[in-house]
Amino acid sequence: PRTLNWNPVMVEKQGFKHYMLKEIYEQPGVVRTCLEVYLRPEWEPQAPYSPVQLGLAPAVLADLEFIQIVACGTSWHASLVGKYLLEQLANIPTSVQYASEFRYAPPPLLPNTLTIGVTQSGETADTLAALEMELSRRQGLEPPLSARLLGITNRPESTLGQLVPAIIDTHAGIEIGVAATKTFVAQLMAFYLLSLELAWQRQTLGGDRLAELVAGLRQLPAQIELILESQERYIEALSHDFSDTQDFIFLGRGINFPIALEGALKLKEISYIHAEGYPAGEMKHGPIALLDAKVPVVTIAMPGSVFEKVLSNAQEARARDARLIGVTPMAEVEAQHTFDDLLPVPEVDELLSPILTVIPLQLLAYHIAARRGLDVDQPRNLAKSVTVE
Amino acid sequence: PRTLNWNPVMVEKQGFKHYMLKEIYEQPGVVRTCLEVYLRPEWEPQAPYSPVQLGLAPAVLADLEFIQIVACGTSWHASLVGKYLLEQLANIPTSVQYASEFRYAPPPLLPNTLTIGVTQSGETADTLAALEMELSRRQGLEPPLSARLLGITNRPESTLGQLVPAIIDTHAGIEIGVAATKTFVAQLMAFYLLSLELAWQRQTLGGDRLAELVAGLRQLPAQIELILESQERYIEALSHDFSDTQDFIFLGRGINFPIALEGALKLKEISYIHAEGYPAGEMKHGPIALLDAKVPVVTIAMPGSVFEKVLSNAQEARARDARLIGVTPMAEVEAQHTFDDLLPVPEVDELLSPILTVIPLQLLAYHIAARRGLDVDQPRNLAKSVTVE
Repeated sequence: PRTLNWNPVMVEKQGFKHYMLKEIYEQPGVVRTCLEVYLRPEWEPQAPYSPVQLGLAPAVLADLEFIQIVACGTSWHASLVGKYLLEQLANIPTSVQYASEFRYAPPPLLPNTLTIGVTQSGETADTLAALEMELSRRQGLEPPLSARLLGITNRPESTLGQLVPAIIDTHAGIEIGVAATKTFVAQLMAFYLLSLELAWQRQTLGGDRLAELVAGLRQLPAQIELILESQERYIEALSHDFSDTQDFIFLGRGINFPIALEGALKLKEISYIHAEGYPAGEMKHGPIALLDAKVPVVTIAMPGSVFEKVLSNAQEARARDARLIGVTPMAEVEAQHTFDDLLPVPEVDELLSPILTVIPLQLLAYHIAARRGLDVDQPRNLAKSVTVE
Repeated sequence: PRTLNWNPVMVEKQGFKHYMLKEIYEQPGVVRTCLEVYLRPEWEPQAPYSPVQLGLAPAVLADLEFIQIVACGTSWHASLVGKYLLEQLANIPTSVQYASEFRYAPPPLLPNTLTIGVTQSGETADTLAALEMELSRRQGLEPPLSARLLGITNRPESTLGQLVPAIIDTHAGIEIGVAATKTFVAQLMAFYLLSLELAWQRQTLGGDRLAELVAGLRQLPAQIELILESQERYIEALSHDFSDTQDFIFLGRGINFPIALEGALKLKEISYIHAEGYPAGEMKHGPIALLDAKVPVVTIAMPGSVFEKVLSNAQEARARDARLIGVTPMAEVEAQHTFDDLLPVPEVDELLSPILTVIPLQLLAYHIAARRGLDVDQPRNLAKSVTVE
């Protein structure tokens, strides 16, 4: 008779070899949950109310003139995407600061400023301290200078939840892998929903464009599933080619520049390969000196405002013999001619593309590290939540 | 008889093996020139006029509410130091943007905004295009939304000089080495002088503090000379230890975070070592996974607001067996116990320290590359001024 071959850890991982891989596969569900919780299902373009329901008190988002976001690590990358959305969709000037830097050199006070702290665990010491500093320096000031704080976290019951009066819960469920994946995508969702809510309140987007983006968001879960189904085996095979690779460069522009940073961070965290992300236009101002045949270059090239520019930056890297890997839509002929290897994703509105382009980069990092036999879920030197300064 | 052994190239280099080394040694003179041109020699703390004379029309700097700086590469690093100074000394909120990113996703318009373009050559295509975009999108707008532009450049006769109505000339003289050294320090000087001028106009600094900083600036040339005289031989010897090193990490916080970026860029540009700069507080949020005995960590630790924090970040790296190199004052006992190797600099006001801390990092990059026999003055893949997008 066949015996059942299992152990409790495998059960918890539901058949996945590592929590990280399991959590990568949970992402369609996480995005679906965010849409169910925060989008009004009955909304339509002419409706006299917002498509988004964040459950925030009206005063939190009213009359904003400036937004400053404090965060660390992966949350900092999500915040950079957030800045792009808040500026381009809701027309609010936004800065993103390293929490550890903000604390010791806070920028001059501006009126009607919303300060957003982003931390998965709600316990990140630097982020909490930055928010406390902002609270204390505005203590006793009258509107429009008084403190206005919002948290984005996966754990509303955390210290962050007690510190700030308003929270967007990212609803990603517990994440075990130290390298954040599904919580990153959930933070991106929070920024999409916040930006659309503000765009609606401030009337910075037409109803048609708003409807287009809302419809686009609804398609993301199935599109992530498509990437996972069609790409994982291929990316696993591709990862064999990089068993001795010591350096990687990740390039992106515009809203996908932070995804280049995040792709590099994932690889660095779990494979210990020196991976670095750059805004593609900066390559020629120095880092291109690094490139040769031993340094693969992963480029995110999605059709939109910077597509041609990114392809031309990638071609500069080709001239230095670098192997070019492109995250790009399946049917892009020009991109197919540019890259040696393709990590295709569905064609999608450029503004929504980060939710898709990060998926193959997570899989690439995972498979390179797993193939090297490294402890993917508990990489050396790292803790899941950094509760010390 | 002894024959004269020389060739024209050596004469041009005035006995230095490379232009880059010659230009590193020209830095005390460059700083001295900036001080002579832009500081009023007779100024004293109670004087009813500014210590600085930039020769700008009063309208350029009046009533500023926001400053945005666009730049690339090394100029972008100088701009980050500039942001710190403009915010902390003159209390003006400031953003620094990659010129190549700014063009394609300009931030929302703010009133009374000064846009500063920083380019050594005055011909950097991305920076010029960003400024042109800013000009054109504000075309026809009335004050306070009309365009206000300022250039910081080493070549006032350049395209930049024709594009913008106001220029701060960095007076560094021609720079031949592709890796910028003296022009970086001269850009820093421009930001010090601009920030002090604005601090004086806006009365954000007391007369005594202003006098302290002005006196501190005047001491910088001799202090740079001291570093060059006392450190170069030692750094040359130290560079032998890194003949096989493939990765370097540079850490700094606060006003020295951009210097960590610049130190890493210099090394990357001319030695092709994968060097990366980080704000020290971010290490534990990912990049610390990279560290082991093969990755030296260069830390800038100057007494001031973040001294203890930086030392504690460096100690985290020590726990991962990394070799620790510290840029720190000569007499700092605590720092001496933290680092394996010291690159001492004179003790100085934290706010002025970037002009000193960058010097040993330039020498380190130079000697590591020169010892590897690389073409220091003309590194592969790089051009002195990037006149294409």
